[in-house]
Amino acid sequence: VRPVAIVGGTLVDGTGHEPITGAVIVVENGRFSTVSRDADVPEHADVIDASGRYVIPGLMDANVHLSCVIPDDVLEYEGRYEERIEKAAQVALASGLTTAFDTWGHLDALIAVRDRINKGEVRGSRLFVAGNIIGFAGPLSSDFYPAGGLLGPATVERINTQWERGVGADLMWLTPDGVRRRVRDYVEGSTVDFLKYAASGHAQHRQFITFSAETQAAIVEEGHRAGLTVQAHTTTVESLRMEIAAGADILQHGNYTGPEPIPSETLETIVDRKLPVAAIITTREYFEWIQSHGPELMKVIYNRTQEENDQRLIDAGARLLLTTDAILLEDRQVEHPSLAPYVKNAPAVGMELGQAHFRWLEAVVERGMAPMEALMSATRYVAEAYGHGDDIGTVEPGKRADLVILEADPLEDVRNYRRITAVMKDGELRTGG
Amino acid sequence: VRPVAIVGGTLVDGTGHEPITGAVIVVENGRFSTVSRDADVPEHADVIDASGRYVIPGLMDANVHLSCVIPDDVLEYEGRYEERIEKAAQVALASGLTTAFDTWGHLDALIAVRDRINKGEVRGSRLFVAGNIIGFAGPLSSDFYPAGGLLGPATVERINTQWERGVGADLMWLTPDGVRRRVRDYVEGSTVDFLKYAASGHAQHRQFITFSAETQAAIVEEGHRAGLTVQAHTTTVESLRMEIAAGADILQHGNYTGPEPIPSETLETIVDRKLPVAAIITTREYFEWIQSHGPELMKVIYNRTQEENDQRLIDAGARLLLTTDAILLEDRQVEHPSLAPYVKNAPAVGMELGQAHFRWLEAVVERGMAPMEALMSATRYVAEAYGHGDDIGTVEPGKRADLVILEADPLEDVRNYRRITAVMKDGELRTGG
Amino acid sequence: VRPVAIVGGTLVDGTGHEPITGAVIVVENGRFSTVSRDADVPEHADVIDASGRYVIPGLMDANVHLSCVIPDDVLEYEGRYEERIEKAAQVALASGLTTAFDTWGHLDALIAVRDRINKGEVRGSRLFVAGNIIGFAGPLSSDFYPAGGLLGPATVERINTQWERGVGADLMWLTPDGVRRRVRDYVEGSTVDFLKYAASGHAQHRQFITFSAETQAAIVEEGHRAGLTVQAHTTTVESLRMEIAAGADILQHGNYTGPEPIPSETLETIVDRKLPVAAIITTREYFEWIQSHGPELMKVIYNRTQEENDQRLIDAGARLLLTTDAILLEDRQVEHPSLAPYVKNAPAVGMELGQAHFRWLEAVVERGMAPMEALMSATRYVAEAYGHGDDIGTVEPGKRADLVILEADPLEDVRNYRRITAVMKDGELRTGG
Amino acid sequence: VRPVAIVGGTLVDGTGHEPITGAVIVVENGRFSTVSRDADVPEHADVIDASGRYVIPGLMDANVHLSCVIPDDVLEYEGRYEERIEKAAQVALASGLTTAFDTWGHLDALIAVRDRINKGEVRGSRLFVAGNIIGFAGPLSSDFYPAGGLLGPATVERINTQWERGVGADLMWLTPDGVRRRVRDYVEGSTVDFLKYAASGHAQHRQFITFSAETQAAIVEEGHRAGLTVQAHTTTVESLRMEIAAGADILQHGNYTGPEPIPSETLETIVDRKLPVAAIITTREYFEWIQSHGPELMKVIYNRTQEENDQRLIDAGARLLLTTDAILLEDRQVEHPSLAPYVKNAPAVGMELGQAHFRWLEAVVERGMAPMEALMSATRYVAEAYGHGDDIGTVEPGKRADLVILEADPLEDVRNYRRITAVMKDGELRTGG
Repeated sequence: VRPVAIVGGTLVDGTGHEPITGAVIVVENGRFSTVSRDADVPEHADVIDASGRYVIPGLMDANVHLSCVIPDDVLEYEGRYEERIEKAAQVALASGLTTAFDTWGHLDALIAVRDRINKGEVRGSRLFVAGNIIGFAGPLSSDFYPAGGLLGPATVERINTQWERGVGADLMWLTPDGVRRRVRDYVEGSTVDFLKYAASGHAQHRQFITFSAETQAAIVEEGHRAGLTVQAHTTTVESLRMEIAAGADILQHGNYTGPEPIPSETLETIVDRKLPVAAIITTREYFEWIQSHGPELMKVIYNRTQEENDQRLIDAGARLLLTTDAILLEDRQVEHPSLAPYVKNAPAVGMELGQAHFRWLEAVVERGMAPMEALMSATRYVAEAYGHGDDIGTVEPGKRADLVILEADPLEDVRNYRRITAVMKDGELRTGG
Repeated sequence: VRPVAIVGGTLVDGTGHEPITGAVIVVENGRFSTVSRDADVPEHADVIDASGRYVIPGLMDANVHLSCVIPDDVLEYEGRYEERIEKAAQVALASGLTTAFDTWGHLDALIAVRDRINKGEVRGSRLFVAGNIIGFAGPLSSDFYPAGGLLGPATVERINTQWERGVGADLMWLTPDGVRRRVRDYVEGSTVDFLKYAASGHAQHRQFITFSAETQAAIVEEGHRAGLTVQAHTTTVESLRMEIAAGADILQHGNYTGPEPIPSETLETIVDRKLPVAAIITTREYFEWIQSHGPELMKVIYNRTQEENDQRLIDAGARLLLTTDAILLEDRQVEHPSLAPYVKNAPAVGMELGQAHFRWLEAVVERGMAPMEALMSATRYVAEAYGHGDDIGTVEPGKRADLVILEADPLEDVRNYRRITAVMKDGELRTGG
Repeated sequence: VRPVAIVGGTLVDGTGHEPITGAVIVVENGRFSTVSRDADVPEHADVIDASGRYVIPGLMDANVHLSCVIPDDVLEYEGRYEERIEKAAQVALASGLTTAFDTWGHLDALIAVRDRINKGEVRGSRLFVAGNIIGFAGPLSSDFYPAGGLLGPATVERINTQWERGVGADLMWLTPDGVRRRVRDYVEGSTVDFLKYAASGHAQHRQFITFSAETQAAIVEEGHRAGLTVQAHTTTVESLRMEIAAGADILQHGNYTGPEPIPSETLETIVDRKLPVAAIITTREYFEWIQSHGPELMKVIYNRTQEENDQRLIDAGARLLLTTDAILLEDRQVEHPSLAPYVKNAPAVGMELGQAHFRWLEAVVERGMAPMEALMSATRYVAEAYGHGDDIGTVEPGKRADLVILEADPLEDVRNYRRITAVMKDGELRTGG
Repeated sequence: VRPVAIVGGTLVDGTGHEPITGAVIVVENGRFSTVSRDADVPEHADVIDASGRYVIPGLMDANVHLSCVIPDDVLEYEGRYEERIEKAAQVALASGLTTAFDTWGHLDALIAVRDRINKGEVRGSRLFVAGNIIGFAGPLSSDFYPAGGLLGPATVERINTQWERGVGADLMWLTPDGVRRRVRDYVEGSTVDFLKYAASGHAQHRQFITFSAETQAAIVEEGHRAGLTVQAHTTTVESLRMEIAAGADILQHGNYTGPEPIPSETLETIVDRKLPVAAIITTREYFEWIQSHGPELMKVIYNRTQEENDQRLIDAGARLLLTTDAILLEDRQVEHPSLAPYVKNAPAVGMELGQAHFRWLEAVVERGMAPMEALMSATRYVAEAYGHGDDIGTVEPGKRADLVILEADPLEDVRNYRRITAVMKDGELRTGG
């Protein structure tokens, strides 16, 4: 294949360096070979004129859910979940996300699609997948959608075991060693990319701790032993502190601590150690809508304390990762009784795949994050936090050729992230809609 | 095809006449041509030796549900409900039911299988189908399984409309004429075999009346206008009286009247007019199990009053039809939370397709019905009540060649109905398992 | 006691006649003795100067619920429900309601307060009470608040029987004669003032019919036999037609027919026979609020069809009665999960005792009812419909001296009903707050 | 007051020493002054002849709930909970329990009754009370009975705050220091006798950890700082290990670990350190009934693993305390939907106050505990575990004169504990029923 040269644009390369105007970006074999203002364009290269445009690294979302979520989908698409994941991966890529980290979903289906994308058989965001959140039961359970009144135990178990893969809520009954063995089996029995465990509960169990300090340490050790990054779902100040102590690499929604603000000591640790916080941050517009229209339950999360946490994290210069919990949000998802109260008729919904990451960027800039920091939160920081900083996240020679070309400067106006003219992943260019 | 002659057996022909020993039954072109003790066997006929055996008409069940019932099945088999119906029709036929009347189910799927069986493409009981119970909402509703908390409105509506076919619970809002138009559309838009409407409610609505006298009359008229028999689901003394007044042809579970016994006047009308009562009657063993182990709700139905009604109906010589509400009852149905309380670990469960009709026969004989009357309740009476008395129900010349061969005399011991050696439907013989 | 003369005001006497300016209204022994423009004021009379003011008959509400409704109240006030009823009766009287018809509540407590008011021991609106709605179960049931998951059967039954008084939902199981006997016992066992029965269901059962035509006729007969008016709760076109056929004296919320408009034939009957329709009619403001903010369930009732029914009834000149379903609506009622969706943060809530009747008057005038007709709907028509037209409802000699003095003309601006300066009941005057 | 001498009986004094036949037990000023075979009876003493009888220390239950539990009672007895507690304390005393430790209930009411009993104003078991379980929400919450669908928020909060007293489930949101402050306020704001905190969740939350190690340590420290024993509710192997590490004095139902048996290491720690395990142990008869008749939820607790834990604890000689969770179990409690599945028609129900402790003793002996050890588990061990070993628990000079006189030897046949002829508490004798 011939090299491709993108020339004439302004490059914001994701390293935090000043933008380079009139940049020459040469892509060979799917990777950047030259990135420089002064470079020559190889003679035989295909040239893309980016004059007047802005080139940024491919965007990344540190937390999406591409497989089915609502029971309707979980039941209907059984046996062909991959269809939905492929569709979602395409929506994600088209909106500039060259890489997405799926932090909860149907492991087998996610892996199948991930591999198909990696082989080039299907277009879509590059995926890294965690499968189950260690310690959570499957989708038809009290952790998500209790279905035992409507569906029989055989159906419930059939579905849930596909998600749980041996690391479900029953792990809470076990000793640290018992959990360790289960996690090891999980890691060895699949090609999972990273681990996510529950440091605290979900749904109605949010204020509870799921695993003791010893068990958390065991889970992190098992992940690291296998060369995987480990993150924890956290929703309280203690589960946050515990996952840090356990050595978690990413603090998944570390900005959620219910009614109690993040303790200063914890915040300092986060800042000092540059611990990546995967923080779902909403625009003020959506936040205020939830305050006036949302259900009580959601106010446990989207409350003033969370907003305060967000502000303190930003002000203190904590390392934030673009994080959205985004799902493919079509009519049937919007109308579902579990989601409708949060999304129906709501403005700037945070969890809408394809839009969510733009809204996150708008939200953090709105809340005072420096534009260059926001860009890194959406690119390099995510790559580094997940241990892929050598391979992706910036536009530098040797890295995978993932980039997005914008019509206007995203550092000047954060809404310009939406003005995508082309997306390149692994050197393959996609233009138009 | 060559004629078939079944010779040497004792024939109980379903007319109520004395059994004929040494009977010669000749079948030609799917119908009985000769039935007599003295007849000659056609020379070229295939001869089946039934010496020492007993020949009875093919059995019939006036109320089965062959399509999916529990939400698990309704959701999982969508698009291929016919698979389940075919399986059920085969189970039914193998157990001696040459004809089954499906009184609630997925109309399109039932019709498809019915037609396939009639064409000989698939083996199975001959089916007559009603589709929806006029006035009931679909399976994912408060009439059956309220699913709106777990599933979104699109899913619920998609499923329910397949069952309701325009004659759902919203008919209760309409005038008699409004209901009449809907019923007419229903009849004209399909090849439904008979109509069933709700004279009273279901599930938590059992004590309510669904339709006024005028509306009930309109429904019956519409059915009759189209040449169809019309039956009504009834659960109270008033809905029973009202459906009789409306001209219903069959009183579907007319033996259920909650805590109030059937009024003597109503009972007299039933007996005098020989109104067919499709009565689910259980063995004493199951009845007592329900009293001691069953949930409170079920005691609204299987209570002492019902047992008293059953006894009075039998003692008064009311025309009862073998009726079981039977479904294909496999593990997942048994374990379903809606059914488990009635069937799990229970003896002589009434609703188990393939067993239910034997248990019904045992139950009525146990409660004092004459053995010959029991046999007619399971054959001729059902055929006549449904308007097919000229075609099926007895072993008489000119009728469809449906019969069952038993190892021992069912009039002597009702358990002998289970000792089937062969089943013939439309002249086609099936032996073995 | 000395006579009282109210002089100088403009009298709108409730008969429909033109207002009388400079009226002299003399009250003796609790009744009007003279009502005339030209009458002399008795010498020894106390004179009240009503110059510049407007005198109207005491207002009436054809449907209030003064005893406890929400489970919190039902449980907490057990044994002392009369406290709440007294409080409510005082709120009602202070807002100009000299008479209120309580159409569902705790019979014993209501009677006790009614009698105490009548004896003059307690101030409050004159009460007429129905006790239970014949055919409805008590407050802790599926007709209102199913409590069986939280409270034990003894508690549920203890409470419910206090409301049901032998004429609860179990009547649906009975024959017409069986129901008749129960109703007779109910009438004979108390000093109930009028009867109300369920022609259709409540809560989740709204589309169902409760009683057959024969049973409804029996209930009405029993009421009439005892000299009581009989009304029926109706929510569908058929239950409306049936209660008319049964001879009900008042059609309780006859304007509610779900999604199906009142048939023209039924509307004509209502108009021709001047059948009183007790219609809850809301202001457009509240109606539109419900459309945009209310829960789905309520849209079964407050829907476009209802609005259309209201308009057709008004346009056709049907006899409407001021009807509000009003309850004492304080913070804990407003916040209750069953009511909050209808009333919290809502404008012009229809069911707020003390405000509801003003809003009803505003609503009907807004929807085109002539001001004089509106006034009669709130006075004379109610009295007549309930069979008390000879005693109350207008300011005419011989009738009970119930009147309201307003600062400004209610016929000119319907909001002037709120500008009460004094309320007289049985000749006893109450001024101020 | 004159001394009392109980003479001639066989004394099993609770120390573990051989029984003393012909014992002379002298009681002066509410305490034992002399206990010896050879002692003289003071001349002026009242003599009680215990010849042929058996004298044991007053029995103790390490875990009862004397205040209201089911919502019906919680709501109905509001403002007069003390009535129920007094009744319960009398039932307890009459059945030989001279001391009861109430580990969850309405603190103010419990303290009031405790003090009234101590002052001699009311007869009843000596009470020591914990009030709320630190970390649990009140009775109308998801930790016990979620009532928010039926009752409004004002009612729910009004009730719950009476139980929670500032140390409810919201503590899970706090830091260790935040929890510490709340616990300190709780201790300082009342005369609570001991502390109980949740190491794991309740009801549907049983597998979750409530507090981190640091928070647990802070709670224990606060209790000890105030001179109180501290125990923890535990239901998993990890919460058990954590509460031991935190320094809890009593392991409340330390025998419950769900499906995972107690790890050997933990068991060794328990045995080596003689950590008191307050273990609810049921008779085999009840246990097997639950297996065949009980609901699924309860099998999380009363399962084969628990039975195995019980056996291992007994076999290893762990220090067990008689513990029953007993409540006043009358008809309305038995019929309550939350309890009926566990107690209705069940044999040897473990939680029936007045019977429960006898059944516990029968259960442990049945499972192999030495009779003398069983007696100490019901007396001295409880006293010591709760830090009152110097004052109560054995029949020794100087201790409070609490004893029970039995007709027959409880060491020979454990059922003899039921054959009580007299109960003495603080020197006061109660005979008869």
